[in-house]
Formats: sequence, structure tokens, C-alpha cells
Amino acid sequence: MTSFHVRPLVASLVTFALAASAFGQGGRASQSQPTIPPLPIPSMERYREAAGRIIGAALVDSAAYDRLAYLSDRIGHRLSGSPQLEQAVDWAVAEMRKDGLDNVRKERVMVPHWVRGEESAELLEPVRRPIVMLGVGNSVGTPPEGITADVVVVRNFAELETLGEQVRGKIVLYNVPFTTYGETVQYRGSGASRAAKYGAAAVLVRSVGPVSLRTPHTGALGYTEGVPKIPAAAVTIEDAETMARMQGRGERIRVQLKMGARMLPDAESANVIAELRGTERPDEIVLVGGHLDSWDVGTGSVDDGGGCVATWHAVRLLKRLGLTPRRTIRVVLWTNEENGGRGAEAYAKDHAAEIRNHVLAIESDGGVFKPRGFGLTANDRARATAKGIAALLEAIEANRIGDNGIQADTAPLIRQGVPGMGLDVDGTHYFDIHHTPADTMDKIDRHELALCVATLAVMAYVVADLPERLGQ
Amino acid sequence: MTSFHVRPLVASLVTFALAASAFGQGGRASQSQPTIPPLPIPSMERYREAAGRIIGAALVDSAAYDRLAYLSDRIGHRLSGSPQLEQAVDWAVAEMRKDGLDNVRKERVMVPHWVRGEESAELLEPVRRPIVMLGVGNSVGTPPEGITADVVVVRNFAELETLGEQVRGKIVLYNVPFTTYGETVQYRGSGASRAAKYGAAAVLVRSVGPVSLRTPHTGALGYTEGVPKIPAAAVTIEDAETMARMQGRGERIRVQLKMGARMLPDAESANVIAELRGTERPDEIVLVGGHLDSWDVGTGSVDDGGGCVATWHAVRLLKRLGLTPRRTIRVVLWTNEENGGRGAEAYAKDHAAEIRNHVLAIESDGGVFKPRGFGLTANDRARATAKGIAALLEAIEANRIGDNGIQADTAPLIRQGVPGMGLDVDGTHYFDIHHTPADTMDKIDRHELALCVATLAVMAYVVADLPERLGQ
Repeated sequence: MTSFHVRPLVASLVTFALAASAFGQGGRASQSQPTIPPLPIPSMERYREAAGRIIGAALVDSAAYDRLAYLSDRIGHRLSGSPQLEQAVDWAVAEMRKDGLDNVRKERVMVPHWVRGEESAELLEPVRRPIVMLGVGNSVGTPPEGITADVVVVRNFAELETLGEQVRGKIVLYNVPFTTYGETVQYRGSGASRAAKYGAAAVLVRSVGPVSLRTPHTGALGYTEGVPKIPAAAVTIEDAETMARMQGRGERIRVQLKMGARMLPDAESANVIAELRGTERPDEIVLVGGHLDSWDVGTGSVDDGGGCVATWHAVRLLKRLGLTPRRTIRVVLWTNEENGGRGAEAYAKDHAAEIRNHVLAIESDGGVFKPRGFGLTANDRARATAKGIAALLEAIEANRIGDNGIQADTAPLIRQGVPGMGLDVDGTHYFDIHHTPADTMDKIDRHELALCVATLAVMAYVVADLPERLGQ
Repeated sequence: MTSFHVRPLVASLVTFALAASAFGQGGRASQSQPTIPPLPIPSMERYREAAGRIIGAALVDSAAYDRLAYLSDRIGHRLSGSPQLEQAVDWAVAEMRKDGLDNVRKERVMVPHWVRGEESAELLEPVRRPIVMLGVGNSVGTPPEGITADVVVVRNFAELETLGEQVRGKIVLYNVPFTTYGETVQYRGSGASRAAKYGAAAVLVRSVGPVSLRTPHTGALGYTEGVPKIPAAAVTIEDAETMARMQGRGERIRVQLKMGARMLPDAESANVIAELRGTERPDEIVLVGGHLDSWDVGTGSVDDGGGCVATWHAVRLLKRLGLTPRRTIRVVLWTNEENGGRGAEAYAKDHAAEIRNHVLAIESDGGVFKPRGFGLTANDRARATAKGIAALLEAIEANRIGDNGIQADTAPLIRQGVPGMGLDVDGTHYFDIHHTPADTMDKIDRHELALCVATLAVMAYVVADLPERLGQ
């Protein structure tokens, strides 16, 4: 997942901003005030046998793992505009057809096409040494000869503001230790424009992650309109701390930054859609999905190959088990979540006429580690029902229903009143590898992935099959 | 530390082999049989006040941390033959003189001069993708055009032996998960020659470490005489697992390996020596030390800049506190531990005449994390005394006396009967960063380093000051 969106251009942190706001609690998606006493949790005993079949079948099935391994190993990373992303789109369509899913199709989306190009950073003073870096997504490049300038290390925006015009012509290094993603990612997201306001030549950003083995994390930035666009690169915790110590000793720090990054004309991509058509109310939709694009490092196995494969295979599993619910379950593999959000935008726009038919939108974009349940943004009646369904997942300890169900690609739907759920997993190590070359298949545990498939399948199936529509 | 030594050429794992052998218990260093009941532990109450002064002073002193930061940040990594190693040697001599230590000097040592050169590895089939790698130290290079061959993945030597001649002309990948260092490092150390016996063209070795963020670990190999020398490179856990999955799917794997590695003529280096001369028996020596050389990645802050700085600053602290013991405490910063052991060999040879005057040899080469005490290779009388001294370190929880006191650079002395101690620390994360670009200053905790200084200083001081010689 990313939490930084560049459209609109005003710096925004959609997922986390939404998570932190009152929207999830008081917005259109959740119109009722807290009820005391809470609504009774309805029994879902009649679905217990189906849940058992789903869980058991998921645990002995290797299709999800094998498909994610193929996506990771053979297709690899999938940045918007890359041939790999379109290869992944076509592969998913072909495989979904093999699975016998209904209405398998691509829905065309034009996506931003940012390319990294050749890039490097070198410490020139007080010693000459390469700096491990990754350009920040959407960043402009440097001139071919690079930008060579003194470095000023700051620990937060307050220090930048205090320095003000003293950073003119310099490279600002934000050496900000990771606290939460939402808090720390602001330096990557808006640090360039905030330093550019004072005339900085470029920025380096300490990678947004809690630990490092000389590990750079990329991700997107957004430029503020009316402020010069300057290049931005992520550096490792190790190199950021080294420069901070150098500054602390009063040493002059000079760095040469070279980035061939550039934005090309929009490229053609697609959301991938497949369905398990409902038996009684096929026009009512329970949506499940993840995003198929990734950053251009690692193989995007966790972010968000896992979410795509888990949601897709939840539906595949229901199909195989002959568990066809009353309503339609639709898988959406969005494109361009990482650096534009165009897939989510296009889906909401193209399906505007049927948005009211979306009973629930479930997204998995926080990794496919051991599932704990779901976050939910919906009214109290929906929450009570969700808790009833989640009780079916108690045996695999995935029965939590938390407060926030908004994730990046479902946000446009939830904003229009669709109840939203996000798969909730043990994210302890998610940000260790997030947007790094280490987001690879070995980070996926076969059993945990199977548990995610089971958790998604049980929730989607029961919501899609209940006689009454969720929340009504 | 390294545990793989290339001299003698027969593959050997000096430290760990010694640790595992009966030598530590039954060799010349430990001539008495276990005594029942054990010898009484002598009281060291008369040193309690001195221990308190040492511990307190160490905890408020930042000299060790600052010096290690300078070594890391300004000098950087220090492979044998590199200008940085000699810069570190000269810097240490100059700083030790500033500290007012006695007899500060360099003792010349000729060291192997292996250079990495340009290197890369690329997966060509089933997909084209760069492989993150580090050539293994002492490896030969490839022809300039590289070696392009099919890859065969094995999980252990038994699988290699079963394949036998089937690996001829191929690149063998040892995909061996980390268990213990001593066990797993054999694949890096002797894997090249073992595959070359069957005609392999080159080997790739899964990096010897328990975790990875696409992190390659270098380290040394030793070639077996009479077998062709083939190139060897370490790859990350991620890339090793990727190739293993590809083989599992029946995919043909082709890799191009390019290594500019070569061995140049021996270079001049030096052990650095400084002393705190004893008041009554200056010819009797308590030796403390670490190795100043490192691998040519990261900054060798943990392996073994920390050991050098901690042992040196233990002595510096005693000097500053006016705690001059009866015997001499000698700091030795060995050269060439990582890829030759020539510093340790030279010290033992150059000081052959006074080896019997070495009362104890203490080495710190396992990191300067939270100290737990010492490993000890000595007779039972020495062990009882060491336990008495260690009791003075109870307040900082560094009072363990374990069984094995042999480390790489003290091994030649211990082999000749000198009692040996190794600083014992919490090594939980030592192998995460060992021989990697992530062995950097940020891995050093200021407080833990200070505790190491205190632990070393108390032990060295008391052993050097006791009326009776240790173990007699």
C-alpha cells in the first residue's frame, strides 16, 4: 500500500489521514451515532459448516502461494507504465479465466508513467563514499551532471522552518526516525516542496522504516503547486545517521546527487475484474481486491501481490467449493495504487451507476501476514453483522472487527457511502520491507497466506449470501 | 570476527572448530581435570572500590563511542592492503599517544592483498534480472566476459555429492539456511573447492546470516590444494530462494557472473600495540585486543572496530583513573584477521620469547553489545579466580564465566598455553549484519559499548594487579 497520493497535488496522505480523521466514524459510511447498548450480534451458526469447508480447503490448497510465487519470480516488480505491469494484468486475466470465474475482463485506465532512470548519490566531503539511495517516486531528476551541494541535516520540519533561507542552494536531509508510517511518511511526501520553498536544491529523506540493513525505501512524493520542483531521494538509516554525526562534529558535508528520473506521457493500463455471479441478486456486489501495480524494486510480493492473490483466490476457492452466494462477489485488481491512484479513481467513475449496488468493499493492502480480522467502516448494524460473521473465524484467530476499514483503493467507494473493510493482519514487519528491494516472495508465509484466503473467503461469502443486505 | 581462515589452506574453521573441540577443556591451557568439589572462589572484595570507579567512569565517558564513530565515519572499511587500513593503523597510534599510553608502536606485518574489483551477477533465464551479490573474499575472478552457465541449486553437501559430475560446467548455488555460524559458514568457506572437484564453473553461496533485507554477506573462502580455483560469490537469501523456487518449478536457470577479484602481492600492514606498564612486574602481560582490519563493505564498526576501541579504551580508562596494576596491560590491535590471520601469526612469532610472560589474553571480536561476561579457556584455578573477579561485574550483569575463551587472534597464544578469555556479549543480532554493508556505527549502542569498556577494564585490571599470577 502507499499512503501518499499525488492527486490532488496538494500533499495528502489519503489512507492514514482518513484513518485518523473522524470520517470513518462519522462520515456518510457510518451515519448512526454509537448506540447504547450495542446492537445484538446476530448468530451466523447456519454458516458454520460452510466456514469450516472454506477454512479447511484454503489450508490445504497451494494455488495462491504458487500463483504469487509466479507473479513474483517470473513477472517481478510492476510499476505503472512498465511492461511488467501489463504482463501481470494479462496473466491475471488468463489465469482467472482458467479458474472459471465469470466476466473476467480488463477495464482500461490511463496511468502516470514515472521512470527512475539511472541514479546515484555520493558523499564527497568529509570523505568520499557511495550513498545507498532510491529516488522518490514522482521526483524530477537532476541535470545530467548531478546536483553537488552542501548538506544540512534536520530532524523535523520545525528545524527546517527555523533554518529558513539558510538552506538555499543546499541539500536538505530529513533524518527523521520512524514512529508511525502516517507521521514519518510526511517527510518523503511533502519534504521536497517544503524545503524548496526556502530555495533548497534537493532533498534526501531518511527511509521510512523502523529497521535497516542498509535498506532504502522508495515511495511517492507530491509537489506543491507554485513551488519549484526539486529532486528527492531516499537514503538508508545508516547513511542518514552517518551524515547527522558528521554535522554534529562540525564537518562540512558535500553530496553529489544524480537522478535520471522523469515523467513520461500517461501509459495505458487496466484494472482486472472477475466475478462469481450471485444466484439471487447478481446485481448486488461484494467487492474484494488489492492492487496489482508495485514499486520498481523487489517483486511487490507483499505490497500488494499478496493482497491481489489472496482476494482472487478467496473467490476461486468459493467457486471450487460450489459455494455460490446470493449476491455477486467481484474481484478487482486495481492498477496504479502506488503513484497515482488512477485505478481506484477509474473504477469509482466507470462504475458510478452501480456504486449503490456495492454492499461491501473489502481491500487487502497491508500484507498477507497472519490475519487478525478486519477493520470496518460502516454503520452499527453492519458492525454487529460483521462481528457475527467474524465469530466463524475464531478458530483461526481472525475474528477481530476493528474501527477503520478504509484502504487506498476502496476509499473512493467508501467516501460515497459503501461500507468498507480492510483485511487486518499482524503488520509487525510490514514496514521493514515496504517499498524496498526486500519485498520479495520469501517474506510470504505459505500458511499465513492460506489463512488470509480463508478469512477473506468466509467474510465475502457470508456477506454476499445473507438474506438481508449488510447494514440494512 | 571471521571463523574461516585460509592459512593453512586446508579448509579450517579455527574459532568455531576450537570452540567445539575438546582443546579448550583438555589442551595445554587447561591441564587439570575437573576437581570435585570445585575450587573455592576467592573473594575480590578488596577490588570492589576500584571496580566501582571503573564502571562509573566508563558509563559517563564518551571517548570510546566518539573514537569508534570517527573510525567508522571518517576512515571507513579497512580490508587488508587498503589505504584505509593503514590510515586506521596510523590514526590509532597517534590517538594512543595522545592518551599517554606507554610504548605505543606499530609492528610490521605483511598481509594478503585481495581486491574485489568490479563485480555483478545477472539472472538471464527464466527472466532477466540483476542478482544482489558480494564476491567471497580470496576468490579468484572470472574472465572479463564473465561466466555464463546453468545454475544447479543444492541444499547441502550431500546433494552436491549425489549430483557429482552432473554439476560439471555449471554454477552450483548452495541454498543453505542459517543454523549456527560454524555449521553454515562451511559452504562459504569450502563450497568452491568441493564443487570444483566435480567440475563446477563457479559457486554462489546463500549469505551466511539468519535474516535479510536483500543483504549480501561477504567473508573468506579457502581453496583446497590440487583442485581448480573457481569463483565464488555470496547472494542474498531472497535471490537464493528465488532460484530454488525456479528450480522447483522445473525452470532452466542461467546466470552470468562477473568478478574482477584478484590477489595482489602481499602488502605492508601492522599490528598496533600500546601498554599500561605495570608497577611491580612489568614483564608480565595481560593482553587485551581486537582486530583493526575489516571487510570492504560497511564500516567494520561491529566487526571489529568495536572490539578494538573497547579494549583500547579499557586501558585508557585505567590510565585516566590512575589505576596502574602490578603487571603490564598490553593492547594489541591485530591486522588481517578477516582474510589471513597474519597479524595474530606475526604477534605470536615476534613475541615468542615472551609468550610465557602472557598471564592472560583477552579478545573482543563478537561485537560490543550488552556484555554478559567472558568465555574462558584456562585451568580450574584460573577459572575460580575469574569467577571471583566477575562477581565485581554483577551489578552490570556481566558476571558470567563461560567455557570457551578462544577467539581468532588469541588462538595462537592459547594454543601455546596462555589462558584465554573472549568478551561474551548478547550476540542476538550479530550475524544479521556480519560482513555486510550494514555493519555500521548505528548498530553500536553507546551504553552497551560503555559497559563493554567497563567489563574489560575491571577484568584486565584485577588480573594484572593480583599478587598471584592467574592460574598459579
